[in-house]
Amino acid sequence: MSMFEESMKEKVKEIEKIISSFLPEETGYQKIVVEAMNYSILAGGKRLRPMLMNETYRLFGGRGDEIQPFMAAIEMIHTYSLVHDDLPAMDNDEYRRGRKTTHVVYGEANAVLAGDALLNYAFETALKAFEISEDLEPEKINAMREISVARALKVLAEKAGIYGMIGGQTADIAAEEKTSVTIEELTFIHKYKTAALVEASMMIGAILAGASLNEVRKIERCAYNVGLAFQIQDDILDVTGNQEELGKPIGSDEKNHKQTYVTLKGLEEARMEVERLSQEAMSILEGFSGDSSFLCELIHSLIYRTK
Amino acid sequence: MSMFEESMKEKVKEIEKIISSFLPEETGYQKIVVEAMNYSILAGGKRLRPMLMNETYRLFGGRGDEIQPFMAAIEMIHTYSLVHDDLPAMDNDEYRRGRKTTHVVYGEANAVLAGDALLNYAFETALKAFEISEDLEPEKINAMREISVARALKVLAEKAGIYGMIGGQTADIAAEEKTSVTIEELTFIHKYKTAALVEASMMIGAILAGASLNEVRKIERCAYNVGLAFQIQDDILDVTGNQEELGKPIGSDEKNHKQTYVTLKGLEEARMEVERLSQEAMSILEGFSGDSSFLCELIHSLIYRTK
Repeated sequence: MSMFEESMKEKVKEIEKIISSFLPEETGYQKIVVEAMNYSILAGGKRLRPMLMNETYRLFGGRGDEIQPFMAAIEMIHTYSLVHDDLPAMDNDEYRRGRKTTHVVYGEANAVLAGDALLNYAFETALKAFEISEDLEPEKINAMREISVARALKVLAEKAGIYGMIGGQTADIAAEEKTSVTIEELTFIHKYKTAALVEASMMIGAILAGASLNEVRKIERCAYNVGLAFQIQDDILDVTGNQEELGKPIGSDEKNHKQTYVTLKGLEEARMEVERLSQEAMSILEGFSGDSSFLCELIHSLIYRTK
Repeated sequence: MSMFEESMKEKVKEIEKIISSFLPEETGYQKIVVEAMNYSILAGGKRLRPMLMNETYRLFGGRGDEIQPFMAAIEMIHTYSLVHDDLPAMDNDEYRRGRKTTHVVYGEANAVLAGDALLNYAFETALKAFEISEDLEPEKINAMREISVARALKVLAEKAGIYGMIGGQTADIAAEEKTSVTIEELTFIHKYKTAALVEASMMIGAILAGASLNEVRKIERCAYNVGLAFQIQDDILDVTGNQEELGKPIGSDEKNHKQTYVTLKGLEEARMEVERLSQEAMSILEGFSGDSSFLCELIHSLIYRTK
């Protein structure tokens, strides 16, 4: 294992500890839905979004703990979208990461509620970043911190909603019913369905660390490139990947007549686009004064992954 | 029409104008889900939650406009819960208030997404109550207002989630699978499924108007009574109501073997409980120095309604 891989493993462990610390207790008459929430979020995964968030926070000198509820919140939002995506009315998937999906284990009604509950709990959790308590006197609040938290909440909500992830999912469902999609439509789907939460992750990291408006805009651009490159690489792997390494059948996009960047533009151009996007992302990061070496290596590993 | 009824009609109109002003535009690749959101929320209804919120805000002397995004947000949350409740995997209802339900018109996948989108947009909308903008300087913020908004957001999220409405829905689904429920379980379901959003509505009104912690606690108790009495009256009407006036078949609870306060305790005791709860609610309201006459009349009309 390389030093980078070891460091990744360590960081994933830390992130899972943070996420777990914010999960609700499986007790009371609502126990079953809490079990379904925790089953879904503890199913593993790369924890990329909280990792990108935390690393961006560190890049801009963040040292506090107000980042933690947001790290848990972004993973809750990502997870709820998977739970609802897997429903029979949506993609009807019975397995994810080798485990039975939430609706298979807990029934469809509880899976709908568990998804709703995770989205709602994401906001309940992120709101914990406010120091504001019921009896805090106005003159004692740390205005800078509270402003950052409010700005971060706005980014979280916007990038998860109809002008973000949900918008992308809607367009994706509409595209599946068509015989052809344009490159503009496909880019919209990727930007919103995949890149939006990556943008939210990195922007929230920057905002909470006190980055300027201009820096946050640059980070948004960087994250957009990362998200888009990640998605195009996904499409490339579907054609060129090793079935065993990937853990899922290759060539499924072609079989399902799914239009991707690769089917629309060809493998060559897709690879060039991934290269262009990731170079731009890394050069944005290197333009900041902080140490971006781990973040650059992380992005490189995401984009040039073989699984 | 009585003066009270005329005043109600006028207020509902105003509330619908406020809600409409916060709805997203039906445009772009995400158009279909926005149409489904707006179809669902513009389906009519009593607009009780925003009305209770606004009236409580006025009772405590609130005069600003930060209440408006919260009025729209609470109705979005109520609406999303109906959209998901009506899904085939849940209650499988094809009609609501005489109109086809969202999944019947837009398909199941879009109904799942429209519900998610409404919940998410509720938080996007409520967050608009912050004056905090990207370029606002810390010393210019109105700390009292921002604290109130943050507190109101916390109440909104908590009362809508697993320790609120979703918790109640979960227990309700679990109860349907049982042959008998206890009065404790039934009270839990009513408290969380029905009363929680009423509590949120009135508490947010009080908080945003600057009510004290003690006053907010009293309002929570008052709202709990209103929500519970409203629900028990629903169960009473299912037995004693006039089918034409109600617009739905009576006796459906018995037919569906659904246990209610009436089947568990009898009609006599149910009526006494409604009386007790509403008296307590009104005496709490009358204990405040503001003019609670409209609010008391509103609560009276809700609890002693015949439809």
